[in-house]
Amino acid sequence: MAERDGTDDSVGAFVPGPRATCAGAPEGPLAGLGFAVKDLYDIAGWPTGYGNPDWERTHPVAAGTAPVVQMLLQAGASLRGKTRTVELAYGLTGENVWQGTPLNPRAPDRFPGGSSCGSAAAVAAGLVDFALGSDTGGSVRIPASYCGVYGIRPSWGAVSLAGACGLGPSFDTAGWFAARAGLLARVGAVLLPEDAAPGQHPGPLLKPEEPWVNADPSTALALGEAMEALQGLLGPALSIGLAPEGLPAFYEHFRNAQAAEAWATLGSWVAATRPRFGPGVAERFAAARDMDPARAAAGRDFRRQVAARLRALLAGGAVLAYPTSPAPAPRLEASQAEQNAVRERSMGVTAIAGFAGLCEVSLPVAEAAGAPVGLSLVAAPGRDRALLALAERLAGALGLPV
Amino acid sequence: MAERDGTDDSVGAFVPGPRATCAGAPEGPLAGLGFAVKDLYDIAGWPTGYGNPDWERTHPVAAGTAPVVQMLLQAGASLRGKTRTVELAYGLTGENVWQGTPLNPRAPDRFPGGSSCGSAAAVAAGLVDFALGSDTGGSVRIPASYCGVYGIRPSWGAVSLAGACGLGPSFDTAGWFAARAGLLARVGAVLLPEDAAPGQHPGPLLKPEEPWVNADPSTALALGEAMEALQGLLGPALSIGLAPEGLPAFYEHFRNAQAAEAWATLGSWVAATRPRFGPGVAERFAAARDMDPARAAAGRDFRRQVAARLRALLAGGAVLAYPTSPAPAPRLEASQAEQNAVRERSMGVTAIAGFAGLCEVSLPVAEAAGAPVGLSLVAAPGRDRALLALAERLAGALGLPV
Repeated sequence: MAERDGTDDSVGAFVPGPRATCAGAPEGPLAGLGFAVKDLYDIAGWPTGYGNPDWERTHPVAAGTAPVVQMLLQAGASLRGKTRTVELAYGLTGENVWQGTPLNPRAPDRFPGGSSCGSAAAVAAGLVDFALGSDTGGSVRIPASYCGVYGIRPSWGAVSLAGACGLGPSFDTAGWFAARAGLLARVGAVLLPEDAAPGQHPGPLLKPEEPWVNADPSTALALGEAMEALQGLLGPALSIGLAPEGLPAFYEHFRNAQAAEAWATLGSWVAATRPRFGPGVAERFAAARDMDPARAAAGRDFRRQVAARLRALLAGGAVLAYPTSPAPAPRLEASQAEQNAVRERSMGVTAIAGFAGLCEVSLPVAEAAGAPVGLSLVAAPGRDRALLALAERLAGALGLPV
Repeated sequence: MAERDGTDDSVGAFVPGPRATCAGAPEGPLAGLGFAVKDLYDIAGWPTGYGNPDWERTHPVAAGTAPVVQMLLQAGASLRGKTRTVELAYGLTGENVWQGTPLNPRAPDRFPGGSSCGSAAAVAAGLVDFALGSDTGGSVRIPASYCGVYGIRPSWGAVSLAGACGLGPSFDTAGWFAARAGLLARVGAVLLPEDAAPGQHPGPLLKPEEPWVNADPSTALALGEAMEALQGLLGPALSIGLAPEGLPAFYEHFRNAQAAEAWATLGSWVAATRPRFGPGVAERFAAARDMDPARAAAGRDFRRQVAARLRALLAGGAVLAYPTSPAPAPRLEASQAEQNAVRERSMGVTAIAGFAGLCEVSLPVAEAAGAPVGLSLVAAPGRDRALLALAERLAGALGLPV
């Protein structure tokens, strides 16, 4: 494995082979920092592998660099390499059978989470200061929770995905990881537009019942101290039932709506190329291909209703807080059936922000069973900067380095 | 009792004595309708009695007519007389020992509710088409619920209280009653400013746990059909804990903040005049006089926090729904202690809109124990017209005459 810039790769976070690197501008708000980029963003002169050898083989080397990466370089950060991703970003464990699954530095016997597995692992191992990922159905949030780092899924549309491979365009977002809340916000200051309502104070704090009930009791318990600190900042949490239809319905409709988009986006390539896929990914694309259009339409209808509900509820500044993942990462020996069960249970919750284009920050504030679990703060679209500032305040209140 | 305009007064709704009447403009959106006005609004040439003989004795006959009354007259409605009120509007049963307590036409063995008792009774008995009241801590909503009529407490500040006696200026609102939702809205079209966000759809529907738990089970059950119909209009209700501090704390802080304002507004008159007061009213003014300033300040602090919480939660269009009163009207033979218990239990709920200046419409959609109980719809300040339109849609969905 080439290590042209001296960055090691003790955890298998980077794409194997020669390392795509690029020095940042000499000055700027991120000067001196090193970052990595999930291998679905284009870097001029380098292949964009999208986690799958047949994708890389059938696509030309990138002619340009994705604008989001250019913004980071112009802000002074230096690119240290491209990171591994689940194939076509279509999975939450972080497994990649072609390149090897990155190690979860905080829990080596467990999955790192995906699909932005390499970016999360690179940050968790301290190989880079921050890393770009992408999030359609949880692909930043889940690995952030599993690897014990901060991660943000920004409001849908807030950060450009030009020059990035798509999976479900109406759900896809750029996102990033950092080991500290302050740096997560500093990157946001470079990438994010100004907030829609910059003077608005965050609050009230809403505690949705379903994701808390959905979580392992030990995970919910472990997040109690952070919830206490959050109430110190925002006032008493108001318990709310956000999903009277049930999280399984959230999962089902999200999966169906997303699968239809995935096939619309990638189906022609899959059908023409007949790529080799690792376990799980192949099944998901087969299901996407065979998706009943009526079920996909029902998913989109459900999404519209839930999105309207959530956006109205959060329009005045309310902040949701709940476990990012219902439990720590599954163990590496988990069966495909166990992984699928975790996937369903996780995506019912990640669908909340996914359906409505909300911004969500996961904070690595606790451990359960000796492995990291994150607390998510979620706000209305366009409140990303306020949310990052709140995450920083919460980290400070908890005595974490910011 | 004079009946100069031919309107009878079978229920003792009007102020005894010669009847203040005034013909409305020949044309206008309310042409042909008759209305009554709570005897705390000025009508030029008539005394403003405020429910207490010593008040009337020590105040001059009104030189002008309150603008809200002028607006109604100009819109074509004709004034049929002034209605009885609890003394200085400081009570919720509707009792007036000097003039007689108006009969509750829908439940003659029960109180009519107050303080706008005469206006509610006049509408419930069909003596007038609509009637003006005022609402500080429930004085429109409670009698609307008890008498089985529609009533609105508008957003604080939405309708002028010039020419009206005050009780707690930061809580006082004008309000009105009608027997049908359509007419309640027609009056609103005359009196209310345009909504703050006229294109906004109402929703989601929020069902606050505390007022439902606070209600008698039979009252909560009786309102179930209306809640079903409301969900048909707004989608599934989201259960929410709005008052983690507890409704008793809402009552306590509301009472203290209101009492301090009541004494600031009326204390100098009370101290100088030493008026005779009926039972309950005397005690409330004594308590207002003796209110510990620190407790009043704590009440104002609490109010600020709760108001910020509620306004943020409702800013995007969310609508609260809960029982207007926890039970039907208390029976006429209820002891003062029983009345006080009802008062505490009711005002913890009415404080929700009171603290935050929200608009609230009570709809006479059910009966419990053979007497009326109302369902309240509550929205953010400035959404009065949308709320009235929603009330009309709900009445229609329930098959009520609109």
